Amino acid sequence: TDGKLVVSDREGNWEFQPIGRVMWDAVNADADTDNSDDDVKGTELRRARLGFSGKIYDWGYKFEADFAGNDVSVKDAYLGYGNKLTESTKWGVKLGQSHIPFGLNTKISSKYMTFMDRPMFADSTVSPARESGIVAAINDKDYKWLLSAGLTNGPLDGDGETWDNNGSTFAVRGSFLPYNEGKNLIQLGGGYLRQGGGDNFGFTPDLVSHDDSFKPVSTGSIALEQADAFTIDAMGVFGSFHAMAEYLDHTAEPETGSDIDTTGYAVEAGYFLTGESLKWSKGYTSGITPKSQYGAWQVAARFESVEIDPGSSLEDEYDQFTLGVNYYPTKNTRLMLNYSKVTDLTVNGSGADEEPSAVKFRAQAFW
Amino acid sequence: TDGKLVVSDREGNWEFQPIGRVMWDAVNADADTDNSDDDVKGTELRRARLGFSGKIYDWGYKFEADFAGNDVSVKDAYLGYGNKLTESTKWGVKLGQSHIPFGLNTKISSKYMTFMDRPMFADSTVSPARESGIVAAINDKDYKWLLSAGLTNGPLDGDGETWDNNGSTFAVRGSFLPYNEGKNLIQLGGGYLRQGGGDNFGFTPDLVSHDDSFKPVSTGSIALEQADAFTIDAMGVFGSFHAMAEYLDHTAEPETGSDIDTTGYAVEAGYFLTGESLKWSKGYTSGITPKSQYGAWQVAARFESVEIDPGSSLEDEYDQFTLGVNYYPTKNTRLMLNYSKVTDLTVNGSGADEEPSAVKFRAQAFW
Amino acid sequence: TDGKLVVSDREGNWEFQPIGRVMWDAVNADADTDNSDDDVKGTELRRARLGFSGKIYDWGYKFEADFAGNDVSVKDAYLGYGNKLTESTKWGVKLGQSHIPFGLNTKISSKYMTFMDRPMFADSTVSPARESGIVAAINDKDYKWLLSAGLTNGPLDGDGETWDNNGSTFAVRGSFLPYNEGKNLIQLGGGYLRQGGGDNFGFTPDLVSHDDSFKPVSTGSIALEQADAFTIDAMGVFGSFHAMAEYLDHTAEPETGSDIDTTGYAVEAGYFLTGESLKWSKGYTSGITPKSQYGAWQVAARFESVEIDPGSSLEDEYDQFTLGVNYYPTKNTRLMLNYSKVTDLTVNGSGADEEPSAVKFRAQAFW
Repeated sequence: TDGKLVVSDREGNWEFQPIGRVMWDAVNADADTDNSDDDVKGTELRRARLGFSGKIYDWGYKFEADFAGNDVSVKDAYLGYGNKLTESTKWGVKLGQSHIPFGLNTKISSKYMTFMDRPMFADSTVSPARESGIVAAINDKDYKWLLSAGLTNGPLDGDGETWDNNGSTFAVRGSFLPYNEGKNLIQLGGGYLRQGGGDNFGFTPDLVSHDDSFKPVSTGSIALEQADAFTIDAMGVFGSFHAMAEYLDHTAEPETGSDIDTTGYAVEAGYFLTGESLKWSKGYTSGITPKSQYGAWQVAARFESVEIDPGSSLEDEYDQFTLGVNYYPTKNTRLMLNYSKVTDLTVNGSGADEEPSAVKFRAQAFW
Repeated sequence: TDGKLVVSDREGNWEFQPIGRVMWDAVNADADTDNSDDDVKGTELRRARLGFSGKIYDWGYKFEADFAGNDVSVKDAYLGYGNKLTESTKWGVKLGQSHIPFGLNTKISSKYMTFMDRPMFADSTVSPARESGIVAAINDKDYKWLLSAGLTNGPLDGDGETWDNNGSTFAVRGSFLPYNEGKNLIQLGGGYLRQGGGDNFGFTPDLVSHDDSFKPVSTGSIALEQADAFTIDAMGVFGSFHAMAEYLDHTAEPETGSDIDTTGYAVEAGYFLTGESLKWSKGYTSGITPKSQYGAWQVAARFESVEIDPGSSLEDEYDQFTLGVNYYPTKNTRLMLNYSKVTDLTVNGSGADEEPSAVKFRAQAFW
Repeated sequence: TDGKLVVSDREGNWEFQPIGRVMWDAVNADADTDNSDDDVKGTELRRARLGFSGKIYDWGYKFEADFAGNDVSVKDAYLGYGNKLTESTKWGVKLGQSHIPFGLNTKISSKYMTFMDRPMFADSTVSPARESGIVAAINDKDYKWLLSAGLTNGPLDGDGETWDNNGSTFAVRGSFLPYNEGKNLIQLGGGYLRQGGGDNFGFTPDLVSHDDSFKPVSTGSIALEQADAFTIDAMGVFGSFHAMAEYLDHTAEPETGSDIDTTGYAVEAGYFLTGESLKWSKGYTSGITPKSQYGAWQVAARFESVEIDPGSSLEDEYDQFTLGVNYYPTKNTRLMLNYSKVTDLTVNGSGADEEPSAVKFRAQAFW
């Protein structure tokens, strides 16, 4: 009855599910530079994933690969185990490649993001998404509190391997609900990340679109000795309204030279005009089901800022806002319209004239 | 009961379906040149696709990628909406990458083609198949008439993007059934295509096989100012017999120099020895279901011709016939044997001696 | 009830099944050389496959591709037919790419291997796995004897084609059960392989891990005139115990120079501590179903040896043993721990000092 296929036996001892998502984007981005080649205008298959997930008794597995760009990129690929620890607490462990426990915007599935792009610091070298290794969690049975830790060895690279990554990553994240009445809730969370050395490090965020060629804000590239980062985040859902905020501080220690400090934050709020309430599941947002057969409408706004202090030179910074309208024809389809504009751009300590902006449209489905 | 898996609820409000096809070819092609390296002989995985399609109420989606050649090529990837316009007419729109409405042979699915290869002008730069953008259609509820238009931005390229394609494509196709008695029918159709400039253009058809290295007929490569093309086509099914004809005229206007005019046509006829009748669905052929548990047999023949008038130099032309025998063990499997021979080859205005020919075999299944 | 999804009609006339497997490895290999870069340490997605298989009446098809390494590699892709020959014998034929009938360790599915890696001579140029062409078999209805032959044209290469492979491969394998009481059985088998010329040939086995960079044992690379190989193998299952042995002799005849003779053998034994018995299906091992809800435990050991006699120079050889512990939480999941060590290494006729070893861990699931 809900457009998803889950095959299971009557006792729920096993489950099998084909999974996937398609996101097709049309983008018109104005870099606001003197070079019109910096502008991007066109269409793109942003995500195109196929996979399967299943569980048998307490064991589960998931495999999903992305084929956007006529290329293969393995996303989740793990074997997992989960069970009760006590009457009211559960624990679980995943072996393979999965999301490391760090960051809120990075962890929220692209199926459920409020905007077409995450804040530009999320799902990046300063807030990495999936890595290969072991991730363990303990949580309240209703996920009212959650503590998760990962010991990983970098993402599976072009060879599907991590051999070249000498550095290990340790990540930990906790979250809890200080307030929860029905569907209304407030969640607070925080995380810590340590990345070992041996690899190069660089962070050069896109500004207004995934395909920016104008990327003036950058740490440059360094040989990494080690890096530390932490995030704190808050999320609230009150009826049709939701708000979310995250702050990230990342410090990269080069083998030689001064530390590079990257800070970023993002604040968003959204409202369903048609009365729906954002679902929360296991510590993260999880989409909606439209109340009406004509679908659901949501309006949303976000402000984000990234500041890079390279130590040895002057700072880079950008401030950006994004406005969005989402139309959910059904539970698993969505049309999105976003407008993003950089309001302040600082490069090497001095204000730049460019104010890049973009209009972006997405049609998405998942199953 | 039919070898296809479609999962749906009882009311038909939603559907979910894994889709795919495998085509394995063995080819022995004689280029008839002095260089034996021009001959091709071997086996090939021609198409190997996996995907999913689904619908929820009036919304649908489809994603299918091809993995033949140990490479990824995204084919269909769209979100669609369809509904009634009046009691007797329907309309629909697709966002993403899908077939543009142009050409008959290009649009017929490779699952249902009569021969192993389309006429060499179909599914090419002069009759493009899938592009990224928007395609809309209105039609009689039984598809007895159909009008479809697309505004697209080129195919998703190696990056899964269309950023580099400056030119937009506008395509329109209409078809109707002047005669329809039971399963017997005649369909007439036509289409128009305009391709914007900004990209290079070239058309160098294969002759007798998908892997030809001897390709003497060619427009060369030019910087395109714009191009216009039209097709007219007719199709008839009378019991076990079917016939199909298509004429294409494509004119490419270079940024400098004279227009390049490409014309092509193909005429085919087929007959089921075992009494089946070719299915027609939504304006295109759609396979058969064997009457006997021992399968169905079809014989078929095609004549095709392509002529390239480059304006500035003398013409290239080839004429070719293809004979085919198809055995359908079941509805969704087929063995095919084709013999193709070029009967006339003209290069730069003078008749060439080569008469390339090929024997081709295919084993295919789809689901 | 068993974690696998097979969709079929009530009469069993057709079936449709999504298939796949994920294997995630963590490896710590010590090459024991002076160069620490020869050691490999890290994680890897060893196999990550998605596909579908189905059958309709007597016709079947299978398509499966591997996406490990963020790359596509088509594995099985064929259309098959099978039927009874007499009351007690069956026959079948496969068109497309499938396993050629040669070798025991090469043919056993990676889902069911006792150890993480096959003996290093299996699934290699001296004992090839999948090729494109035709494979036919006749067998007793219970597979108590089996005779299979293949005529193929090399594996589908990077282009998904075999055009460049001039040489054809002829392979034949037979096996029978001289003893079979309940689940206890002894199987004897043998095979013959002839590879045509026209291609380069080389065999340079890994020693202790799939990602070895230290590979001192090698035939070098030659232009192949033709090659012949044979295997003999034996397998026994007695309650919770199993044993398996295979001997391979491969002779490559270069276009110029002396023959290169490669011989290899592997002997393995395993025991289920929890009372399970290895399943045998159609001539090969086929996993287990744990008796307890807490899973099954197996211990196993293998000794293998490869010797290369290049004719023109002195011999290369390695001897290696592997110890393994397998934990099967459920029928289709497994955790594996392997320790491998080279006990004897001879390069160009003289004993080498290096004794590479590796500790390897795998988490796997299939469906």
